[in-house]
Amino acid sequence: MDQSPSLNGLSCPTPLIDHPAVLMAHGGGGRMTQRLLEQVFFPAFRNPLLDQRHDGAVFEAGGARFAFTTDSYVVRPLFFPGGDIGTLAVNGTVNDLAMCGARPLFLSAGFVLEEGLPIDTLRRVVQSMSTATAAAGVRLVTGDTKVVDRGKGDGVYVNTAGIGVVEHAARVGPASVQPGDVILLSGDLGRHGIAIMAAREGLELETTIESDCAALAEPALALFAAGLDVHCLRDLTRGGLASALIEIAEATKLEMEIQESTIPVPEQVQGVCELLGFDPLYVASEGRFIAILPAAQAERALAVLHAHSVTTDARKIGEVREGSPLVMLRSRIGSTRIVDMLSGEQLPRIC
Amino acid sequence: MDQSPSLNGLSCPTPLIDHPAVLMAHGGGGRMTQRLLEQVFFPAFRNPLLDQRHDGAVFEAGGARFAFTTDSYVVRPLFFPGGDIGTLAVNGTVNDLAMCGARPLFLSAGFVLEEGLPIDTLRRVVQSMSTATAAAGVRLVTGDTKVVDRGKGDGVYVNTAGIGVVEHAARVGPASVQPGDVILLSGDLGRHGIAIMAAREGLELETTIESDCAALAEPALALFAAGLDVHCLRDLTRGGLASALIEIAEATKLEMEIQESTIPVPEQVQGVCELLGFDPLYVASEGRFIAILPAAQAERALAVLHAHSVTTDARKIGEVREGSPLVMLRSRIGSTRIVDMLSGEQLPRIC
Repeated sequence: MDQSPSLNGLSCPTPLIDHPAVLMAHGGGGRMTQRLLEQVFFPAFRNPLLDQRHDGAVFEAGGARFAFTTDSYVVRPLFFPGGDIGTLAVNGTVNDLAMCGARPLFLSAGFVLEEGLPIDTLRRVVQSMSTATAAAGVRLVTGDTKVVDRGKGDGVYVNTAGIGVVEHAARVGPASVQPGDVILLSGDLGRHGIAIMAAREGLELETTIESDCAALAEPALALFAAGLDVHCLRDLTRGGLASALIEIAEATKLEMEIQESTIPVPEQVQGVCELLGFDPLYVASEGRFIAILPAAQAERALAVLHAHSVTTDARKIGEVREGSPLVMLRSRIGSTRIVDMLSGEQLPRIC
Repeated sequence: MDQSPSLNGLSCPTPLIDHPAVLMAHGGGGRMTQRLLEQVFFPAFRNPLLDQRHDGAVFEAGGARFAFTTDSYVVRPLFFPGGDIGTLAVNGTVNDLAMCGARPLFLSAGFVLEEGLPIDTLRRVVQSMSTATAAAGVRLVTGDTKVVDRGKGDGVYVNTAGIGVVEHAARVGPASVQPGDVILLSGDLGRHGIAIMAAREGLELETTIESDCAALAEPALALFAAGLDVHCLRDLTRGGLASALIEIAEATKLEMEIQESTIPVPEQVQGVCELLGFDPLYVASEGRFIAILPAAQAERALAVLHAHSVTTDARKIGEVREGSPLVMLRSRIGSTRIVDMLSGEQLPRIC
């Protein structure tokens, strides 16, 4: 009697996509976020720069090329091992510029403060931003502060926008990815997401897991300085490695094959994931990225990355090839499976 | 027995400034906002561009000059006569660029959405932004969407940042203001603030007051195109005309004298202000600005402004002179009074 009806929506524990109201999953960086963008935002603002659908827009003006990007930060809790909303707000936007191949120059900051937020808490966030901007070699040059009523706003939300300058001729983005390219991963996966979760849920761990939150501009730009033909860069924030690769596969119509055995996941992150049923491939990192470039340049690129402290553990994890526009994971025992995009995020509000 | 103690803090109905927590008044654009910036933000990020303390930062890169600015929008209600949070978010940032003397090029948008927000409401906001970007000749090229839990966020907060190009040699800002300059006002005062208040409080008015929210780049840039030596431009948002002039007076250490009889306030705005004890000089407009330039160019500047629909009612309202760094209002009967900066805003969350 099984009539095999459409399984659409049945196999998935997250809500239907065409929901009449905003759901937490719309902010998770997965399929629901994509649909919201495609159904609401992209049609309204269609233009060639927005249609790049990269981490930022790259434009020419005054004879130079610039990148422009923005992110809002609503992470809970505001402070967590390895960082806080301030470090995240600086590094996240610095990294989006770096992923466009740009040298970060200037940041703006927009603060939405909740009435009753202790000034000392705000000072700590601002101090973190100051330290992070100095470390990343970027200057915060303009800003805005709004206050909302007590009970709204969760203490503080921060938006940063950033401008960077592109000092090389490469077009960095999915459009440049070629069959035969290799996929390099800059380090271990998942510490940011698990650090946030442990802090939020009061998880008792043997040793504290610290967020990997860090600025990635130096190692990313070193690849260009070394004359390498970097085709695409992508940081592994909301949705993790899996979502980043799926987006590139779908944009390029190429297959990404990655080797499970080559992907480093810290033992503790692995342990928490097994305990809670999370998949580390989808857990956010805030100081990790992938670089896609010609296979012949892999060794040179890895040598460049290994010279920077935040990417000492960089390695090759896979390659790009003709095929279906999806991500294949080859397991330790040689079997392969398709890596699907999640509807939402395993853990909301991690950035 | 009157010992005439310090009246500091007694004459003012708003809270003390060095409060240990964030108050609504910190977001009002008045003295409390200034103190928050001076005590928390400026010391942490000190750099020459931020220290311009203008509506945006102007920088040189690649042989050209650019302006960069940001604002977050938390207006309540989201929709009001004459506009909504979307039109405000586009025009507000377009206008901050124009006030830097820049031609607006690109906007970013960061949305913080509340779980449960009807998608149709979001669509309306996005559509308004689309219409406003087209009208202002600016492109929205990059964005971000976050979702926060139900009960937080008031439906939607929007941040926009903007980049514009400065296509003339003028240095626009308080530092260029000279004694002998005149102060031009681009139109009537206070419709935005009163429209918001009427919508929020369900005020029954004979005719609906519509917000003056509008893009100001065209008339502002026409002044430069006409070869006029524009010294300073400032839009009259949070804190209104009074706060804008006081900020310029304090930055320049010059006295601003304005004539009450020359300042147009719509009869209905005047009526609501009298009823509720508001002073129209402090009520926000979102489509009005002041231009400060040499007295000898006043007539030509007014002729330029009168050719643009949003500034047909522009007029001279005062002049800049040596004296104390404050704003003097000369009344209809010839008496003068000092215009003080408010601690907060008469009406919170108007933008």
